[in-house]
Amino acid sequence: MPELRKDPITARWVIIATERGKRPLDFSPVPPDPEGPGCPFCPGQESKTPPEIFAFRDPHSTQNGTGWRVRVVPNKFPALRIEGNLDKEGEGIFDKMNGIGAHEVIIESPDHATTLEQHPIEHIAKVLETYKLRILDLFRDVRFRYVLIFKNHGRTAGASLPHPHSQLIATPVTPIRVKEELNGAKSYFDYKDRSVFEDILRQELKAGERLVYENAGFVSYCPFASRFPFEICIQPRKQAADFHSITPNEILSLADCLKVTLNKLAKALNHPHHNYIVHTAPARHPRRGYWDTIDQDFCWHIEIMPRLTQVAGFEWGSGFYINPTVPEEAAKYLREIGS
Amino acid sequence: MPELRKDPITARWVIIATERGKRPLDFSPVPPDPEGPGCPFCPGQESKTPPEIFAFRDPHSTQNGTGWRVRVVPNKFPALRIEGNLDKEGEGIFDKMNGIGAHEVIIESPDHATTLEQHPIEHIAKVLETYKLRILDLFRDVRFRYVLIFKNHGRTAGASLPHPHSQLIATPVTPIRVKEELNGAKSYFDYKDRSVFEDILRQELKAGERLVYENAGFVSYCPFASRFPFEICIQPRKQAADFHSITPNEILSLADCLKVTLNKLAKALNHPHHNYIVHTAPARHPRRGYWDTIDQDFCWHIEIMPRLTQVAGFEWGSGFYINPTVPEEAAKYLREIGS
Repeated sequence: MPELRKDPITARWVIIATERGKRPLDFSPVPPDPEGPGCPFCPGQESKTPPEIFAFRDPHSTQNGTGWRVRVVPNKFPALRIEGNLDKEGEGIFDKMNGIGAHEVIIESPDHATTLEQHPIEHIAKVLETYKLRILDLFRDVRFRYVLIFKNHGRTAGASLPHPHSQLIATPVTPIRVKEELNGAKSYFDYKDRSVFEDILRQELKAGERLVYENAGFVSYCPFASRFPFEICIQPRKQAADFHSITPNEILSLADCLKVTLNKLAKALNHPHHNYIVHTAPARHPRRGYWDTIDQDFCWHIEIMPRLTQVAGFEWGSGFYINPTVPEEAAKYLREIGS
Repeated sequence: MPELRKDPITARWVIIATERGKRPLDFSPVPPDPEGPGCPFCPGQESKTPPEIFAFRDPHSTQNGTGWRVRVVPNKFPALRIEGNLDKEGEGIFDKMNGIGAHEVIIESPDHATTLEQHPIEHIAKVLETYKLRILDLFRDVRFRYVLIFKNHGRTAGASLPHPHSQLIATPVTPIRVKEELNGAKSYFDYKDRSVFEDILRQELKAGERLVYENAGFVSYCPFASRFPFEICIQPRKQAADFHSITPNEILSLADCLKVTLNKLAKALNHPHHNYIVHTAPARHPRRGYWDTIDQDFCWHIEIMPRLTQVAGFEWGSGFYINPTVPEEAAKYLREIGS
């Protein structure tokens, strides 16, 4: 059973993944990516993954067979385990609990070589709808406080397989960086009676200089205090705390915005390895609650981070980032390049 | 002039290094490391760096000539500038200020191929004394709130030159991760009337299972909630908030602890790329102050992080780390291996 341990100084939780059990010699250079026939995410290889949790499938196709469009399976080497109780306990001054959670892989399409942004909007919408359905399903489990949806694209972004996929991790505690955002948004709202997200969007739309793309429902822009070169935020025009409250029409609009934005990045930076992360509100289970203004003060959004620079000791130690590219210049470049 | 920008949601500051001005094509693969004669940190190449700020030198050697043992120079591509006023201002809802600060390189020895831990204790002590003297000097400038000393060793840890060196950045604001530690330590002290650092040390010494090495003045151990495989903390036995309060005897003791610990890491993991960071208290200028218990609640320490795994989207988005190596196993391995 993996273990969740809390740092007594910073209150940061860490997953100690006992079952991956890496000894010193395991940290040798990584083997080459499995291609074509060896890839466990390709059609016909369904038996190489744990049994599927969900799939969009062609009529008459059968579970764990071919004929799927988007497929969700448990991670074969999960960082957290779905079965068991939380069993919180102390160990002297330290706090720990069982590593209960879910760790799933969302295989974005049967096509090994097509990246998300190269698919038609309707297909991207299916992937986004899968995100929504998985969150809704996992939030029915009261043990889970948070579902983090993220994508590692390319080796330097942490992907271990090249077949395009996203991941989700459901955790029994709200991660500390999420709390930071929630607290920041709440403080701002308490002081100004306005959402910081709405204020940012208003200012970005007015200034224009950091905008990358906009459509009826969404805006993508390079944040004022971008930590990384060509960092991008995608934000809905309509304030909403929960990603999973997104409507079918909004999903199509987001699919368009994500497609155009990722295509611009691919063109500008020659298909950079990148991460994106869906920042959404935690589960608000009755009896466990959350503050009553969260729907007004927080807005879900997607952070896209191309991995162009090495993050070094300074950044780790301080949370103080050095960004060598001015966000206004990055945005101008992305606006002007085609998609 | 570089610019400091504050994220309006998380209050995280970012340095926008305008003068590095990276355009998309600048993010191409890095050139090979300059070796031997081309290295600007080697003796005889002193003119290739900006003029030296400080050096331990042989008698009769002259400034910016050869004959130095440890040499401090401004970073040739500084993230922050030493001249100017802070000029804090708003831009709509955003906050920014001039990128005032210092960015220095501490060249650890004239020897291009010898890593810090391969030097005798007396030489390592000279490097540590340099850290202390630079902090003392920079804290005389009231514009600076913090001095971060760190080391990037190897490409994957962010080093751009192989000649062993450390760096320091003096900043006009206290970095957010430092504040997190300070606030955590203060909360613990307010509640328990004890230092969390003293409590951790007491428990680690009693349990023993996470210890790596100890001598008269210092203890190195793998933290209970290590974020990374083989992460190590070096902590003084005597509680002290400021690294720069270290005495000459303590410096020798720390040099021994650092040497043994880094040698164990080198042996266990075949000279891994790594970062280390000195976590120390911010400047406490009269009239700007800090809480009056900081000397009791906070203790400086050094964090050592081998770079063995890729940090991926999940970690970035959540501050929720997955560590595939159990800290007790890492510590046992390091205890048993020679140095």
